[in-house]
Amino acid sequence: MSDPEALDAADPLAPFRDRFALPEGVIYLDGNSLGALPKASVARLAEAVSEEWGRGLITSWNAAGWVDAPQRVGGKIARLIGAGAGEVIACDSTSVNLFKLLTAALSLRPGRGTILSERGNFPTDVYMMQGVESLTRGAVRSRLVDPGEIEAALDDDVAALLLTQVHYKTGRMHDIAALTARAHEAGALVIWDLSHSAGAVPVDLAAAEADFAVGCGYKYLNGGPGAPAWLYVAKHHQDRVQPALSGWFGHARPFDFIDEYQPAAGIARFLCGTPPVLGLAALECGVDLMLEADMAALRAKSVGLGELFAVRMAPLCEEYGFVLASPADHAARGSQISYTHPDGYAIMQALIARGVIGDFRAPDILRFGLTPLYLRYADVDRAVAILAEIMASRAWDRPEYRIRAAVT
Amino acid sequence: MSDPEALDAADPLAPFRDRFALPEGVIYLDGNSLGALPKASVARLAEAVSEEWGRGLITSWNAAGWVDAPQRVGGKIARLIGAGAGEVIACDSTSVNLFKLLTAALSLRPGRGTILSERGNFPTDVYMMQGVESLTRGAVRSRLVDPGEIEAALDDDVAALLLTQVHYKTGRMHDIAALTARAHEAGALVIWDLSHSAGAVPVDLAAAEADFAVGCGYKYLNGGPGAPAWLYVAKHHQDRVQPALSGWFGHARPFDFIDEYQPAAGIARFLCGTPPVLGLAALECGVDLMLEADMAALRAKSVGLGELFAVRMAPLCEEYGFVLASPADHAARGSQISYTHPDGYAIMQALIARGVIGDFRAPDILRFGLTPLYLRYADVDRAVAILAEIMASRAWDRPEYRIRAAVT
Repeated sequence: MSDPEALDAADPLAPFRDRFALPEGVIYLDGNSLGALPKASVARLAEAVSEEWGRGLITSWNAAGWVDAPQRVGGKIARLIGAGAGEVIACDSTSVNLFKLLTAALSLRPGRGTILSERGNFPTDVYMMQGVESLTRGAVRSRLVDPGEIEAALDDDVAALLLTQVHYKTGRMHDIAALTARAHEAGALVIWDLSHSAGAVPVDLAAAEADFAVGCGYKYLNGGPGAPAWLYVAKHHQDRVQPALSGWFGHARPFDFIDEYQPAAGIARFLCGTPPVLGLAALECGVDLMLEADMAALRAKSVGLGELFAVRMAPLCEEYGFVLASPADHAARGSQISYTHPDGYAIMQALIARGVIGDFRAPDILRFGLTPLYLRYADVDRAVAILAEIMASRAWDRPEYRIRAAVT
Repeated sequence: MSDPEALDAADPLAPFRDRFALPEGVIYLDGNSLGALPKASVARLAEAVSEEWGRGLITSWNAAGWVDAPQRVGGKIARLIGAGAGEVIACDSTSVNLFKLLTAALSLRPGRGTILSERGNFPTDVYMMQGVESLTRGAVRSRLVDPGEIEAALDDDVAALLLTQVHYKTGRMHDIAALTARAHEAGALVIWDLSHSAGAVPVDLAAAEADFAVGCGYKYLNGGPGAPAWLYVAKHHQDRVQPALSGWFGHARPFDFIDEYQPAAGIARFLCGTPPVLGLAALECGVDLMLEADMAALRAKSVGLGELFAVRMAPLCEEYGFVLASPADHAARGSQISYTHPDGYAIMQALIARGVIGDFRAPDILRFGLTPLYLRYADVDRAVAILAEIMASRAWDRPEYRIRAAVT
């Protein structure tokens, strides 16, 4: 069945689209870079600004629950990734949280000095590893191998394996449970970057006996631009870690204002500075909305959107030289689909000019995010039809579409 | 002259009060913990949410200037602290920024292993030092001395001296230029925490030949709860530091998505993860408003408010045992005034119940922030009159005022 109207009519998630403030005339295939605005977030932020900050002022730290927001929002994110209560906290950026967990893993494996990842992992993951190497003047070694070599590279010097479950360019999915088990056999801990997973694909960290995870709040969680990120630490590791970023919000008694750092019990010790209250308010709205949806239904629709996209793209691959850059098997693919094309950058600019917003990833990838909460099958159908028109008319072949600006 | 009405009538900053959304019936003496809401921030955040995020979606990274916000807001903060263009960037939390600068200073003084501060410095400053000590398993030593011993402690092992200019409890001010010069003579670098300085007292980092500074956005800058913080790195140090928190936003070409970290030139390398866009939008409003005011007028009014407060408090000190915890000389005091009292916590609760919001700092300090932009002399006069009533009636002596909640 690939009739978009029929698929939309039968879609149990269809009502969610109206919960988002989507601009007219836009088909938004970039929710894996910045998720759309939940309508509820508009009112919630206005309340946080005018009532909580403006009227409540300092008293809102307690009265409006600001002080507990990292734990409260973290607890909600936990339910999306199969984590337990008190195992997730919302805070800082994904990059900063990676640093916390890399140093945590190293401290739990004192005899080992390698942190391992794959080439082509999302840059900030790799860069944060290189920062640890630089900080330790090489005492810790940051090692990158090709994806097929990961298991073989798990030698007895590897303290931590850092992998992104769903690859940001291709959508290729790693098997969290299998790789975690393999790393554990080799005595290593694993840090999973779930930036492209949380709210997009089913994740069960408890079943996988996962050690650590991080993720961002502004993609499928629809937490807003630069939303706070989150981190997960398995319960049994938490109290064994002396945090490197030992800020006052992770202190056992921050308001005693004593001179000695004493980490809070549990996940709270992974907080550092004062929480970003406005960002957390927006993130909480996005997560609350996501929690209303059934994850199995989300995954089924995500797969359906991807399959329809692939079917519609097949003739364009044939005629214009697009090549599928994602796994052909949907079971191995996250909630996105990507194609390479030598003129990919210009083609994406032409798509955006027609209201089809995907994004481009160097050197030649057109990336289309498939967000089941607010995309219709008809949107996917129409997006590929517009791409076909652009290719047929060579509308992409304009000098102004070749000028690259900073994009994310 | 201590007639509050006359002082208010002559106050050149009086018009600024109307630029803030202050609740009725509240005298807010806690702007040094959380600054009040600028009216402009309400509309600016609504625009950032509904227009930039909701309508612009991913295109707002360029079209709405999100990608440059850390540099743009940092450049504005620079003007408040006597820093040059390209020396300040708004990002992360004060705590995380302290980590960046502690590790930066250590990397610039490779033969030295001590980071020095004073006992009773704001806890997160001290805790972040202790985190570096813990991370390096003691290779770096975190040392605290009494305030009077700082200069003597500047031996040839000190890589970095970390001090807060205006003490969070007492308001006591350090001399930035003198201590920086003394540290430089001893071969050490200095990190100034200006959380209670920026927007509150005149600061001239260039004249002091300062190395590094951090500060928070939610106090006198009125950037909102948990606003992004900022950091300053003197131009001549910037390109000599390989950042430890080497995230993708500090990369020379973040959107090339290459596997090797290459720090951006200049202050941008001190960015780490994706910037908190909503928080930066609110912070920028607060800073823009602050930039409209003349710093000399701000300081003059701050001193005037403090002097009036002290004059009015003198009889209460005599009668009820309050003791001035701040320097008596206003030249040595930031934009706050503090008193100790054995029943300080309960007294502060009684004040808050009467609409006078200051805060309490363990073990016995009542702290009153004096924010020249939105406080009137009449407010200070009335606040002390209410305190006098509370003391005369013993209204503070209730069991419910003795139960401590988490406060900030």
